[in-house]
Amino acid sequence: MRRRFFSQQSYRKLASAAGASTTRSPPKQPPKASNPQLSFPCLDKREQKTQELSRGHLKSIQSTSLESGPEPSYGFVTTGFHTYKSKKPIFLDYGGHLREYQLAYETWGKLNREKSNLILIHTGLSASSHAKSQPNNTKAGWWEDFIGPGKFIDTDKFFVVCTNVLGGCYGSTGPSSVDPADSERYATRFPILSVNDMVRAQRELVRDEFGVEIVYASVGASMGGMQSLAFAWEFPNEVEKVISISGCARSHPYSIALRHTQRQVLMSDPNWNRGFYYDKIPPHVGMKLAREIATVTYRSGPEWEYRFGRFRADESRPPALCPDFLVETYLDHAGEKFCLEYDANSWLYVSKAMDLFDLGAKHMNAVVQQRQRSQEIHNGGQATLKHEVVPKEPYEEKNKVPQQFSVEESLEDLKRGMRRLANKDVLVVGVESDILFPVWQQREIANVLIENPDNKTGNIEYFELGTDISNYGHDTFLLSLEDIGKPVKSFLES
Amino acid sequence: MRRRFFSQQSYRKLASAAGASTTRSPPKQPPKASNPQLSFPCLDKREQKTQELSRGHLKSIQSTSLESGPEPSYGFVTTGFHTYKSKKPIFLDYGGHLREYQLAYETWGKLNREKSNLILIHTGLSASSHAKSQPNNTKAGWWEDFIGPGKFIDTDKFFVVCTNVLGGCYGSTGPSSVDPADSERYATRFPILSVNDMVRAQRELVRDEFGVEIVYASVGASMGGMQSLAFAWEFPNEVEKVISISGCARSHPYSIALRHTQRQVLMSDPNWNRGFYYDKIPPHVGMKLAREIATVTYRSGPEWEYRFGRFRADESRPPALCPDFLVETYLDHAGEKFCLEYDANSWLYVSKAMDLFDLGAKHMNAVVQQRQRSQEIHNGGQATLKHEVVPKEPYEEKNKVPQQFSVEESLEDLKRGMRRLANKDVLVVGVESDILFPVWQQREIANVLIENPDNKTGNIEYFELGTDISNYGHDTFLLSLEDIGKPVKSFLES
Repeated sequence: MRRRFFSQQSYRKLASAAGASTTRSPPKQPPKASNPQLSFPCLDKREQKTQELSRGHLKSIQSTSLESGPEPSYGFVTTGFHTYKSKKPIFLDYGGHLREYQLAYETWGKLNREKSNLILIHTGLSASSHAKSQPNNTKAGWWEDFIGPGKFIDTDKFFVVCTNVLGGCYGSTGPSSVDPADSERYATRFPILSVNDMVRAQRELVRDEFGVEIVYASVGASMGGMQSLAFAWEFPNEVEKVISISGCARSHPYSIALRHTQRQVLMSDPNWNRGFYYDKIPPHVGMKLAREIATVTYRSGPEWEYRFGRFRADESRPPALCPDFLVETYLDHAGEKFCLEYDANSWLYVSKAMDLFDLGAKHMNAVVQQRQRSQEIHNGGQATLKHEVVPKEPYEEKNKVPQQFSVEESLEDLKRGMRRLANKDVLVVGVESDILFPVWQQREIANVLIENPDNKTGNIEYFELGTDISNYGHDTFLLSLEDIGKPVKSFLES
Repeated sequence: MRRRFFSQQSYRKLASAAGASTTRSPPKQPPKASNPQLSFPCLDKREQKTQELSRGHLKSIQSTSLESGPEPSYGFVTTGFHTYKSKKPIFLDYGGHLREYQLAYETWGKLNREKSNLILIHTGLSASSHAKSQPNNTKAGWWEDFIGPGKFIDTDKFFVVCTNVLGGCYGSTGPSSVDPADSERYATRFPILSVNDMVRAQRELVRDEFGVEIVYASVGASMGGMQSLAFAWEFPNEVEKVISISGCARSHPYSIALRHTQRQVLMSDPNWNRGFYYDKIPPHVGMKLAREIATVTYRSGPEWEYRFGRFRADESRPPALCPDFLVETYLDHAGEKFCLEYDANSWLYVSKAMDLFDLGAKHMNAVVQQRQRSQEIHNGGQATLKHEVVPKEPYEEKNKVPQQFSVEESLEDLKRGMRRLANKDVLVVGVESDILFPVWQQREIANVLIENPDNKTGNIEYFELGTDISNYGHDTFLLSLEDIGKPVKSFLES
């Protein structure tokens, strides 16, 4: 119910407190405020949505097993994908494990007899395996015009595979899936995930489903760029070419900060309920807000100058605290479209995996050790890692950075970590207007690879799109297909 | 109360549903999940804070009149300022009015006999009048080392005045003040405010309190830079010099988008309660989140690379969805410090005023007409503007920008609007690492002023700090005093 302010009762109280007649004189008209109460149509609309969701427009959840696949409760049902089911458990970088898991995937083109033409496409945060339309799902995919016969990723030449990442909600095992150990949804009992975990699962798929031992190319943009580098790091002898577009070799604190605000906003929605919302009203407000913040980081100022200018949605109306300028209604709409499309817990876990990404030697050594240790513990029958993975107290702020820290030392550490990528052909593509994965991070990847002392045969190519070519910011890979596609095609076919 | 998940009861239900014995066999141990439940110390802490606030750690509100001044309910009580009380109503740019109002202000230095040395300092969004310590409040001010004897703004030479803006909560009339018309707090019955409204109130103060007809200099950074330009626009014959640091001549859609997300997040806190929270639990979660987002926009990536790197707050602990990286604990702390320091409604109104700022001819003509019309209506006794200022329906997204729009025409409009600033000496200072008021907006101000065909005697100076000088982003004016201060001092004293 929408609350009404200034009921008659409170007016009467006020009149009395103000020293007005307390005897039984006829009731007075309440005094008029100087200015009218602002209205909040954006909140009215949101409250209406919550009511509709609580009245069961949201499908009730049926308990699902891994066999039938997770059936997420709202919009994010996709169809027409294949499902790879793991034959063995996966032990994760930060100490957790999944006894079994599945990955949704789609394919385009044909695997050749030598099994040497498989291209693995890695997705960004919220994408499904549906990179392109195919007979089982004819809807346009998120890279529809990038992949296809004669296109930038040429399906006349290559066999293209795209998966929904581990942790996602479009058919792959993630927090909305059912834990086989107790038949309840994982929710926030899902273990913390890494980008390297995602690619290790993909590698199993490629071997088990297609018998492919060596992937021709590992290609991705945004978090997909992290994955393409991670694939080469994990399996340097199982991939020929690597393409990272608007990715990075390690997350920058500014990008972490931007994702932090999105996660905090989402986790602050009371309906998030610490992750246990699957049989309740989903945190649609938190998701909407998180997506709005994210959308700001995906684009650039100059693009919006040309697209929206300073126009208000309706110049004839007075200004309002609810969305008012054209750019605000655009953000509002972007959030609204997305808020029931993607699982909130998947967003949190995958976003966190991006923060944790770091191919530096120190981090990767620690992670590999942790992974081995948890496998040993598991094999020895001690299935619980409780004391290792749950922090007991809130973190305290530490304003001082540890003394041993220096930016130079940190770069040396990254160089050590990335020596494993020696002798790979790598194409790095950066976009100057990108604020989320800034161009100097792209140059960092290229420079570290070029300066790799172990590299003898690997060809490192770097390609940068200036603001004269694209003002689309981080989203350039989805929008400026021609500009991104040309160097990609040339690199893949050389 | 904190909710516990997986009560014994639900485990039993589950066991039953899973086909376990339904006869009266001894109760079974519930099955163990694959991985432990994550903990959320950040949410625990927040819920504890809400409980403490609801238990009355928050001072109860006493009804206040304008005479005793607004007494905000929580941390934002300041002391030691003077109070200017208006002698006449103010009619606002977007149709509202205030029958009476007050402004908190502080002064440093001495007004000379000719009354020709007054410098008006304009503040950013959340600052008080306390720019510098003074006998009645010896705490360091927000520009403590910038202002003083022999300093960049030299109090041996100048009489410096700083006010808390209209709409603020540090002693000036704002949404937390009491509406004299009905003795209730304004809350969201406060009228929409503009930056120009703020400076028109300041001008009354300068005349009524000090008898000053001509201000020597109007100086400000961030929203203060908007105000210094607005002062010169409103009263071109009453100011000698203008300094705008990291400000703009009109808000950019990207900056509007960044502030939009903050407002939306704040308004989504159920405790915000459409602005009526003064006798309840304040929206401390929404304010904390809004401040965290704002903090990201106030700084720059390279600074954080040096300051936080990729360090986690505690490397020995496993990763968590709550604040984890050093940069996250910094943001968390920044939000926490602020969330009860500033009034949420003031934040919304002042943030909106920034969005609306536009010295273009079309906008300013419309605004001046609206202001006159509302004054006429008021004088004619029609006190209500209800149908004019309250939108009835949610805005609809309009993807298409009106056809007549072009970036070039928009610039011409700004040039027309700013012709009023002809013959003023203006110093514009920009910072390359600023993403909120990007440097090209600073160049825009300078270029428009330089190209003003009416300008004959005005000296336009432009000063830009590159990334080699400051990586502090928008906050540079608070942190790199020397770099900002030198051109300011030289301009003021020439």
